[in-house]
Amino acid sequence: MTGVNSTLPEPARRVAGDALQGTLVDLLGLSLIGKQAHWNIVGPRFRSIHLQLDEVVSTARSYADTVAERASALGVPPDGRPETIAAAYTLPGPKEGWIRDTEVVQLVVDTLGAAIERLRERITATAEPDPVTQDLLIGITGELEKQRWMFDAENWPRDE
Amino acid sequence: MTGVNSTLPEPARRVAGDALQGTLVDLLGLSLIGKQAHWNIVGPRFRSIHLQLDEVVSTARSYADTVAERASALGVPPDGRPETIAAAYTLPGPKEGWIRDTEVVQLVVDTLGAAIERLRERITATAEPDPVTQDLLIGITGELEKQRWMFDAENWPRDE
Amino acid sequence: MTGVNSTLPEPARRVAGDALQGTLVDLLGLSLIGKQAHWNIVGPRFRSIHLQLDEVVSTARSYADTVAERASALGVPPDGRPETIAAAYTLPGPKEGWIRDTEVVQLVVDTLGAAIERLRERITATAEPDPVTQDLLIGITGELEKQRWMFDAENWPRDE
Amino acid sequence: MTGVNSTLPEPARRVAGDALQGTLVDLLGLSLIGKQAHWNIVGPRFRSIHLQLDEVVSTARSYADTVAERASALGVPPDGRPETIAAAYTLPGPKEGWIRDTEVVQLVVDTLGAAIERLRERITATAEPDPVTQDLLIGITGELEKQRWMFDAENWPRDE
Amino acid sequence: MTGVNSTLPEPARRVAGDALQGTLVDLLGLSLIGKQAHWNIVGPRFRSIHLQLDEVVSTARSYADTVAERASALGVPPDGRPETIAAAYTLPGPKEGWIRDTEVVQLVVDTLGAAIERLRERITATAEPDPVTQDLLIGITGELEKQRWMFDAENWPRDE
Amino acid sequence: MTGVNSTLPEPARRVAGDALQGTLVDLLGLSLIGKQAHWNIVGPRFRSIHLQLDEVVSTARSYADTVAERASALGVPPDGRPETIAAAYTLPGPKEGWIRDTEVVQLVVDTLGAAIERLRERITATAEPDPVTQDLLIGITGELEKQRWMFDAENWPRDE
Amino acid sequence: MTGVNSTLPEPARRVAGDALQGTLVDLLGLSLIGKQAHWNIVGPRFRSIHLQLDEVVSTARSYADTVAERASALGVPPDGRPETIAAAYTLPGPKEGWIRDTEVVQLVVDTLGAAIERLRERITATAEPDPVTQDLLIGITGELEKQRWMFDAENWPRDE
Amino acid sequence: MTGVNSTLPEPARRVAGDALQGTLVDLLGLSLIGKQAHWNIVGPRFRSIHLQLDEVVSTARSYADTVAERASALGVPPDGRPETIAAAYTLPGPKEGWIRDTEVVQLVVDTLGAAIERLRERITATAEPDPVTQDLLIGITGELEKQRWMFDAENWPRDE
Amino acid sequence: MTGVNSTLPEPARRVAGDALQGTLVDLLGLSLIGKQAHWNIVGPRFRSIHLQLDEVVSTARSYADTVAERASALGVPPDGRPETIAAAYTLPGPKEGWIRDTEVVQLVVDTLGAAIERLRERITATAEPDPVTQDLLIGITGELEKQRWMFDAENWPRDE
Amino acid sequence: MTGVNSTLPEPARRVAGDALQGTLVDLLGLSLIGKQAHWNIVGPRFRSIHLQLDEVVSTARSYADTVAERASALGVPPDGRPETIAAAYTLPGPKEGWIRDTEVVQLVVDTLGAAIERLRERITATAEPDPVTQDLLIGITGELEKQRWMFDAENWPRDE
Amino acid sequence: MTGVNSTLPEPARRVAGDALQGTLVDLLGLSLIGKQAHWNIVGPRFRSIHLQLDEVVSTARSYADTVAERASALGVPPDGRPETIAAAYTLPGPKEGWIRDTEVVQLVVDTLGAAIERLRERITATAEPDPVTQDLLIGITGELEKQRWMFDAENWPRDE
Amino acid sequence: MTGVNSTLPEPARRVAGDALQGTLVDLLGLSLIGKQAHWNIVGPRFRSIHLQLDEVVSTARSYADTVAERASALGVPPDGRPETIAAAYTLPGPKEGWIRDTEVVQLVVDTLGAAIERLRERITATAEPDPVTQDLLIGITGELEKQRWMFDAENWPRDE
Repeated sequence: MTGVNSTLPEPARRVAGDALQGTLVDLLGLSLIGKQAHWNIVGPRFRSIHLQLDEVVSTARSYADTVAERASALGVPPDGRPETIAAAYTLPGPKEGWIRDTEVVQLVVDTLGAAIERLRERITATAEPDPVTQDLLIGITGELEKQRWMFDAENWPRDE
Repeated sequence: MTGVNSTLPEPARRVAGDALQGTLVDLLGLSLIGKQAHWNIVGPRFRSIHLQLDEVVSTARSYADTVAERASALGVPPDGRPETIAAAYTLPGPKEGWIRDTEVVQLVVDTLGAAIERLRERITATAEPDPVTQDLLIGITGELEKQRWMFDAENWPRDE
Repeated sequence: MTGVNSTLPEPARRVAGDALQGTLVDLLGLSLIGKQAHWNIVGPRFRSIHLQLDEVVSTARSYADTVAERASALGVPPDGRPETIAAAYTLPGPKEGWIRDTEVVQLVVDTLGAAIERLRERITATAEPDPVTQDLLIGITGELEKQRWMFDAENWPRDE
Repeated sequence: MTGVNSTLPEPARRVAGDALQGTLVDLLGLSLIGKQAHWNIVGPRFRSIHLQLDEVVSTARSYADTVAERASALGVPPDGRPETIAAAYTLPGPKEGWIRDTEVVQLVVDTLGAAIERLRERITATAEPDPVTQDLLIGITGELEKQRWMFDAENWPRDE
Repeated sequence: MTGVNSTLPEPARRVAGDALQGTLVDLLGLSLIGKQAHWNIVGPRFRSIHLQLDEVVSTARSYADTVAERASALGVPPDGRPETIAAAYTLPGPKEGWIRDTEVVQLVVDTLGAAIERLRERITATAEPDPVTQDLLIGITGELEKQRWMFDAENWPRDE
Repeated sequence: MTGVNSTLPEPARRVAGDALQGTLVDLLGLSLIGKQAHWNIVGPRFRSIHLQLDEVVSTARSYADTVAERASALGVPPDGRPETIAAAYTLPGPKEGWIRDTEVVQLVVDTLGAAIERLRERITATAEPDPVTQDLLIGITGELEKQRWMFDAENWPRDE
Repeated sequence: MTGVNSTLPEPARRVAGDALQGTLVDLLGLSLIGKQAHWNIVGPRFRSIHLQLDEVVSTARSYADTVAERASALGVPPDGRPETIAAAYTLPGPKEGWIRDTEVVQLVVDTLGAAIERLRERITATAEPDPVTQDLLIGITGELEKQRWMFDAENWPRDE
Repeated sequence: MTGVNSTLPEPARRVAGDALQGTLVDLLGLSLIGKQAHWNIVGPRFRSIHLQLDEVVSTARSYADTVAERASALGVPPDGRPETIAAAYTLPGPKEGWIRDTEVVQLVVDTLGAAIERLRERITATAEPDPVTQDLLIGITGELEKQRWMFDAENWPRDE
Repeated sequence: MTGVNSTLPEPARRVAGDALQGTLVDLLGLSLIGKQAHWNIVGPRFRSIHLQLDEVVSTARSYADTVAERASALGVPPDGRPETIAAAYTLPGPKEGWIRDTEVVQLVVDTLGAAIERLRERITATAEPDPVTQDLLIGITGELEKQRWMFDAENWPRDE
Repeated sequence: MTGVNSTLPEPARRVAGDALQGTLVDLLGLSLIGKQAHWNIVGPRFRSIHLQLDEVVSTARSYADTVAERASALGVPPDGRPETIAAAYTLPGPKEGWIRDTEVVQLVVDTLGAAIERLRERITATAEPDPVTQDLLIGITGELEKQRWMFDAENWPRDE
Repeated sequence: MTGVNSTLPEPARRVAGDALQGTLVDLLGLSLIGKQAHWNIVGPRFRSIHLQLDEVVSTARSYADTVAERASALGVPPDGRPETIAAAYTLPGPKEGWIRDTEVVQLVVDTLGAAIERLRERITATAEPDPVTQDLLIGITGELEKQRWMFDAENWPRDE
Repeated sequence: MTGVNSTLPEPARRVAGDALQGTLVDLLGLSLIGKQAHWNIVGPRFRSIHLQLDEVVSTARSYADTVAERASALGVPPDGRPETIAAAYTLPGPKEGWIRDTEVVQLVVDTLGAAIERLRERITATAEPDPVTQDLLIGITGELEKQRWMFDAENWPRDE
């Protein structure tokens, strides 16, 4: 079935579309595991990190929406269905059940770090084909790096 | 690892926990496929349904949070990870790619109808063991029935 | 003409539908006579009761909307047309023209008392067929009882 | 029983009072049938018109309050009781039960058109006796004409 | 010294200017005696009328500003200095010291009644020379008549 | 192609339509030249007038919308396209490039003065055919006269 | 002295009244000891728990008001005087003076746990006599269980 | 156990601490009896005083928090536990059960009067040792005197 | 007629009452002449000072209310009637008609300077009899000195 | 006449200035034709598209302001006068009079598509001379592409 | 160059001016080192103290502005330039680079303690010459003591 | 002591860190001298520029926070201590004491101009190593250029 027309020529559309679809999966996955940790965290730092995780989730949800709508705007139908996320998501995630606060902090540092690394590759890849998409990915990266710092700065005791 | 203690005796805790975990998966799945349709819908009624779907997503997200936190409060660690949703979600969902507005409306009517049916069973099951959980499920059912009506009322032409 | 499908089996749908339609008429009638008293009240307590009546009207209007939409959600078309209200409304109401503040207070106590009595019967009737509708009626009853108390508490001098 | 004194001489008071009482009945009736359609509408344009009808209802309720309070301010007790509306309301209204979206649009165009025609007569009638009341009726007319336009502009297909 | 130029021809400017200056004095005086009563009222209805008087003051202050700025806009310098108000204000006002609530109510009814009477004359006078000024005076009259009604409706017992 | 039906008889519709179309062009032109001055003004009073001009623009845009929608409500399609404004706009406007603050003040006084003069003629013309349209034009005139005063009051030194 | 009439028959009124009065004392006591801990807490987690305690206090105060007003609405005068609370309050409370953060967390877990246990008994007791009161108690229980979970989840180290 | 260090020398700390602890008990007691009257008041002035009492409660709660936190800031652990209030509170309070509106007004006048007298003594006592605490007590006194006036002004009929 | 009782002994009451009544007259006068200048100012700095004057008026009105209510709270009926202000006001004020911006600035500097001088005397006079009143006068003085500075800082050219 | 100095060297200033002036004309034209369609649209989708068009207009106005102020900041006086827009605007626009909803949708898709194409050229042109201007153009392009998608997605039936 | 005139006699002006200038430097320094710690803090309590530090900064900035404007109002030009702060600031501050959370807490306790000690001396010094300045310094001291308490209460482990 | 890990490789981290630290010093210095001028400005344009300077300060403070947190996020501890700013700040600043409005305007134009020049160099330097940092610097530059324009546009008379 025919859908939305693109404002980009085909090769550029494909590169931008791939970058956006990959980012969408990462962000939706991040929003789900952020909530998972938000609900299952235990330990003396419960309240502070419980609240902090909701900022991660809120950021991830908001950018996921922007990213998916940009894909649609480029004529690329985004895919954020449960089975797609489960199949395509490759960042670290929490195990089942209760999880100690120190483990949560380490997990978020690792997950955000991996997501940022992938985003930086996509920033390079989209510079030429679509600076508008690149600008969006730059904005996401800056925000995730800020949130990663905040978890890294409280990642103590480091070896627990 | 030890976690949160329950305020319910064991059998009641198990019944309420099962009802909440099942509802959590349905609501998280609903929030994902609601967004999927929000992004991929095409057709003359695009804007109206695009906005309406965000109300479904917003409702699903908000209740998912309440349901998961109620599980935690009963000493049952909730599970909303991507792989869990993908494995446990059984309600109807959209196919990949662009989707016509009339199909979206039918899909939401069907999905909400199936979710409501399962919720009504859980209302019965939790009445005795935990009226607090039951009250929460009653509230969710009322809200989903309201949203189902709004899609059913605009489900025209019916046989397209 | 075909309309909205119900999520309830037929007998339950009928019981819930009757309870909701009866409540709708009472609430719409209450909103109209509340405004009538709001406009026609005279006496030294004018301002205080004039304002208080608007809270009754606001409550009645808001619940009327919720009740009617719940009927629609159950596949029962609600009826709130002028002629229907005039024919079906049986609670006490004000006479024509200016009305003394003490009379207004007594009238609202009586009207709310009658409405509450009917609501309590409907709470019992809907417990089995539809706990979602019952929960809504319980909420309305609690709110009307609160407002009835506030008028009863200021119903002085009692025999004027 | 004596009530509020008028700031107008008697003949002027009667003319303005009649114009206001007639307008009050039209507006209260309009608010009731607007809600009736809001609840019972079905068809593909359900959501858009469902929302649009609430703007009609909100306008009608707000002006009804202003109109009735102006009557009181002129020493004329307004009458908005259910039986009065049912007896005095003569504008077109919906039949019982579900109603198609296209019919709703036509109905609102007709009802608002009839109400506007009556308001224009009252504008002429009150010009001399009470320019304050006239100014209020002018304001109502402008607002209803705006809302009528919006329904007329979407009154398509015209002959369905 | 030269000031602001007028958009009206001279005779019209004079008529409108007189109407506005007279209204300005009445409104500023009303704002001062409203506050005087607000501070000095005693009696069982203290709180209700204390609050109600602030609505009179707020209305009077707001319209005084609009009226004076309209005079300026017509090239007529408005005069609201203390000595001018004291010399030109002729509406009823409170005596010195504490004042009973029933007296306050009667006083406000009388003062607003007198102000309204003068406004109605100015409405007639400005119809021809400046319909913009007339429209403003019509708006003020409607608002003062509404507030007068609210005090008149609570003017009980009448002969105290 | 057929469009919106009118609630006015034909001759009245034509008079009101002409008055509204003429006002629309003036207001849209005013909004454009107000912005032009807002961007190009230089001189020591830059900031104060830069801000003040945005109030003119905001007023002009808001009334333009109201005026055009009133035309539509009367069955007269309004015309605010670039070529129409350029062809029909006859009020004074700024030259190209930077413009001194004192010149801006004089320009706005002149432009608003000319617009007011035309509005006063339309107030007279529409009194009989459509008091609703007249009431709107009266409101616009009052607001523009207020803004004209504020620029005239700061139009110093006058002969620079 | 006679007071407010009840909308419940006598035995039901007594059962509901007892449940509400008991809950009122628990909630007022909770609000006082919550503030006591809010002011006297010391330790590295001061700020987080200081803020968290204010949410307990805010919840307790708000529900205390609702519970007391429901008692009044049932014709049962509520008693929340200092001497009554001191005499009837039986939940755990803090000792005098500064208190370590870990102790505060344990105290709140214990106090809320005891309050919840008593509420669950009242939910059972009021089911028959007054479902409106029961519904209120269910709501309070759910909220307190949520807050208890948050303190229990951060109740580390457990044996300190 | 060691707690918070003081920024005041010992004798000054003791005087300020005593003044703050005494004020804390008065304000917490006031907040409780204000709510007691808020719930149990009956009589024609119910609504007005019911609302007014909530302003007393709100003031008392807010200042109680400020006073207790100032004590903590001075290294004095504040004591606001139920048993402390019950033992230390010496201002007038309401009897059990429903209470007439006129009695409530007299009670609040008396209670606030007694509290103010004690505050004035503490203002004198703290002037030298801690002007910061004195400034806080001056602020509380001014606010309570304002609220006392409002009840005194409506304390009619005086001898009932 | 008897009014509000005082919480101060007689001599203190008189001193505080005189200070408050004098301040009331100054502030009400200030609010009137501030508006007078707000309306009649002309010159290139019109807009900036027009807005700045409204901050003076707003400050004066707000403090006048506080001052008058403090007088009432001390059992001293405040007097803010037009004739009282006209008779008792002794600060500098504007002449009739349009007034140049530079003159306005000088006038406000002079008027605020004179008001501040009188306030400083009242601060000394009330220190002993009523520190609560003194604290209020200190607050007013600080605010008026801030506003005086802002006009003094822009009082250029100084000798015009 | 001399104006604002530039922070860019001359060739860069010229390139950026041209890009901004061209964008300004496109955006102002877009805001005018968006409003034109907003007022003249007819057809069953009237309300939905009527609202959607206001988002286009709001976007266009807001970015036009930013673009023009950036030109000024670079020392390039922007030109947004009616005659300039009429002469320089080359994007598709509506014909005179009423216009069907389907035509409006097609028109907006075409106009936005053309504007985006021109913006992409300007993004390339400004990359070197002024990355600040480029960043602004990238932001505008992304927003317009999003809005174009929403109209394109509802551009059905395509061949009407 | 001449500046703002003082409302204080010379010796009083000098004492108040010195107190304000000294306080200004302390507060600006505090705002800078508060931000420094806000950015460089690491450790498990990162988030809680990171947020808490922003309240210190916000308080310091707001009071610095008030203090400097009070100096200007007294005719004393305040000095808050970088070189002045660097030269005059004598309170404890952080070393370069990352800083552990426990160190930050100790540092803030020390810095605020030192600032409070200096403020208390200035309160004594200004009592006679300018009670308005004294009142401001009292307010600042109370606020800083409150913030010092909050850090002192969480200053654990004490000897780390 | 170890701190936050970087998401950038070492050379990139150093370049970005230097650019951010340099910008931080410029922005903090700008916020301090902006406030200095805000407090010490005199002259007829006092109020307008006094307000405008607070926008510069607000911008500088907000971006300083963003810049410093970005440095932290890259593992570079930012340095904003008083002594660092005093030593590293090299942009133009005000002399001690009162300062004429015309001088302030010239000073801000010069200071912003110098800051912009340095920012443009950093934009070039960071393009390769870290486009996220570059994007932030582009945003700051655009905002400062806008504010510089506004001061430059009012920089009259130019040679005073």
